[in-house]
Amino acid sequence: MRTDASSIGPGARADRGEAAPAPLFLRACRGEPVERTPIWLMRQAGRYLPEYRALRQRVDFLTCCRTPDLVCEITLQPLRRFDLDAAILFSDILLPLPGMGVDVTFNPGPVLARPIRTRADVAALRPADPDEAIPGAIEAVRLLRRALDPSTPLIGFAGAPFTIATYLVEGGGSRHFEAIKSLLFSDPPTAHRLLDVCAETAAASLAAQIRAGAQAAMVFDTWAGLLGPEDYRAFALPYVRRVFDAAARAAADTGADVPRIYYAGLGGGLLEICRDTGATVIGVDWRTDLATARRRMGPSVAVQGNLDPAVLLAPAEVIRARATRLLDEAGPRGHVFNLGHGILPSTPPDHVSVLVEAVHTHQGGHA
Amino acid sequence: MRTDASSIGPGARADRGEAAPAPLFLRACRGEPVERTPIWLMRQAGRYLPEYRALRQRVDFLTCCRTPDLVCEITLQPLRRFDLDAAILFSDILLPLPGMGVDVTFNPGPVLARPIRTRADVAALRPADPDEAIPGAIEAVRLLRRALDPSTPLIGFAGAPFTIATYLVEGGGSRHFEAIKSLLFSDPPTAHRLLDVCAETAAASLAAQIRAGAQAAMVFDTWAGLLGPEDYRAFALPYVRRVFDAAARAAADTGADVPRIYYAGLGGGLLEICRDTGATVIGVDWRTDLATARRRMGPSVAVQGNLDPAVLLAPAEVIRARATRLLDEAGPRGHVFNLGHGILPSTPPDHVSVLVEAVHTHQGGHA
Repeated sequence: MRTDASSIGPGARADRGEAAPAPLFLRACRGEPVERTPIWLMRQAGRYLPEYRALRQRVDFLTCCRTPDLVCEITLQPLRRFDLDAAILFSDILLPLPGMGVDVTFNPGPVLARPIRTRADVAALRPADPDEAIPGAIEAVRLLRRALDPSTPLIGFAGAPFTIATYLVEGGGSRHFEAIKSLLFSDPPTAHRLLDVCAETAAASLAAQIRAGAQAAMVFDTWAGLLGPEDYRAFALPYVRRVFDAAARAAADTGADVPRIYYAGLGGGLLEICRDTGATVIGVDWRTDLATARRRMGPSVAVQGNLDPAVLLAPAEVIRARATRLLDEAGPRGHVFNLGHGILPSTPPDHVSVLVEAVHTHQGGHA
Repeated sequence: MRTDASSIGPGARADRGEAAPAPLFLRACRGEPVERTPIWLMRQAGRYLPEYRALRQRVDFLTCCRTPDLVCEITLQPLRRFDLDAAILFSDILLPLPGMGVDVTFNPGPVLARPIRTRADVAALRPADPDEAIPGAIEAVRLLRRALDPSTPLIGFAGAPFTIATYLVEGGGSRHFEAIKSLLFSDPPTAHRLLDVCAETAAASLAAQIRAGAQAAMVFDTWAGLLGPEDYRAFALPYVRRVFDAAARAAADTGADVPRIYYAGLGGGLLEICRDTGATVIGVDWRTDLATARRRMGPSVAVQGNLDPAVLLAPAEVIRARATRLLDEAGPRGHVFNLGHGILPSTPPDHVSVLVEAVHTHQGGHA
């Protein structure tokens, strides 16, 4: 839904007193019939947009994440250009780290001044209180709910405990992830204590976003694919479930039906297990085709994905053909169109327009 | 089989005139009954060994790969320490690049002076003739067959065409692999011409190794996991098949039954398709458990893998417990124990001894 200055404020439909149907995106997440498949894009607010890069020339990344007006502005930027069916809060999964007692800078990737390596390091961590740790983000959720058209739901999110733990232990990205693996395999009790703190932090952050008005709750498990199934069951799954349980409780408190979306990076080998996270929607990367993903996971969850982000670097006719094939493969129900990974910074914005139009005009047996 | 200076020469068993059974490793590759599961490790000759690092302080990487005596020495180093069931030629999948007309240096990762980006770049490539491009490697295969105990087969290998093409186009490693993806999606005819040259080169190299005496033929498709199933079928599968066809023809010429092993990095989503490469053994990374891999691929192929290499950083009891679980999961037949990825340079060599002993002493319903 195009949201520019003129449409900020309550949706026009509500002004006319009509009973609005639930937004397309939320209905697709719930597996309800939809008139067309909704689309949003992971990292839709970000570096591929010239207006974002222009803003970032003036303001550093963390300030952008912590200033409610800037979070709103950046969150809305892609919605001014493209007819997307959901907004996602501009933020970062590592934003709560200072609230946990950990210094992080972005350069541009995250770098920790002092990685968490020892039992004492883990013991010194505290769960971050979202009102203190991500106050700008919570306030931005409230502002965005007023700014967005009601047909465009706002997705809140948090980092999965295992992924946050990986950043804390590795101190940033890594080639072989030896530090986190060594911790998991050599000292599981300390690993579980660390994952506890990360889960409590993520749960509190996601619950606070829901209480402030976020209409869907996503958990990004960027590094889940580092783990084989056995280790995923031990070190990732129970903590994701705890975060989604907290999200479900917060949603129940507000009386809203808030879909829970889970994305496991490189998680193709884990799909059947991902179902047990308590997610209602499973994000699938482009390495598994959606028909296979659906077959493996069954009808109890919706799927989100999974165009290879590099397809957006190709000519328009390739984008259209790939989008069409993907929609045909996914079927008309219980599918949220997305990329299989975050949009690449080198993506030409007009290619995104081509994709959104291709998804919106696709005829695929919709209700 | 421990191979030190005293055992170089024909195996003791042959000296005594006994009819030797086929080596354990080859029987496991063929799915035949074995008295125990054989083990070798990807990158078993390399940086985690102090004797390799000492040699490399004196001699650069490419010289090591091109000098038959050094290839032999490095190939044999892990066999002097560990009771491994196969040797793998010390070499590199990018060794044939200069023979294709491409300059590559190792620093330590591969860096191309000038990546292949245009149609003209692709047109200027020529398939590398192995007798000219990897002469040291071919000669080393002959030397190694004389040096190795007959119970320790020698594995030859080549890089998969898509993986070599990826290196050629990206010019080295990459974060998002935008250059190769753009070529595939935007100019498929040029991509196919490039893959042709890579396939011809790999096929010739692998066939030459088999004619020189390599007893198993492995194809490493490090970057296969960049591709979704549709793109894998278009840009990877047919070219791997061509390489394995050439390997099978070379084996038929020599009268030997040479197993064909395929490893697709991050290929968990592609397992069913990998079966169609013509491989007789499929290497599985640690992200898919072997019971699931077998169920998905059926009984027509053996499996190789798939311990998380980071387990070798853990204490001995963890290594033993993980190896045991993996062996139980894989079952006693059609399984070659290996890591799910190359051994990490930080691996303590004595942890490898623990693993090899755990695999060799495992009681798991063997014949």
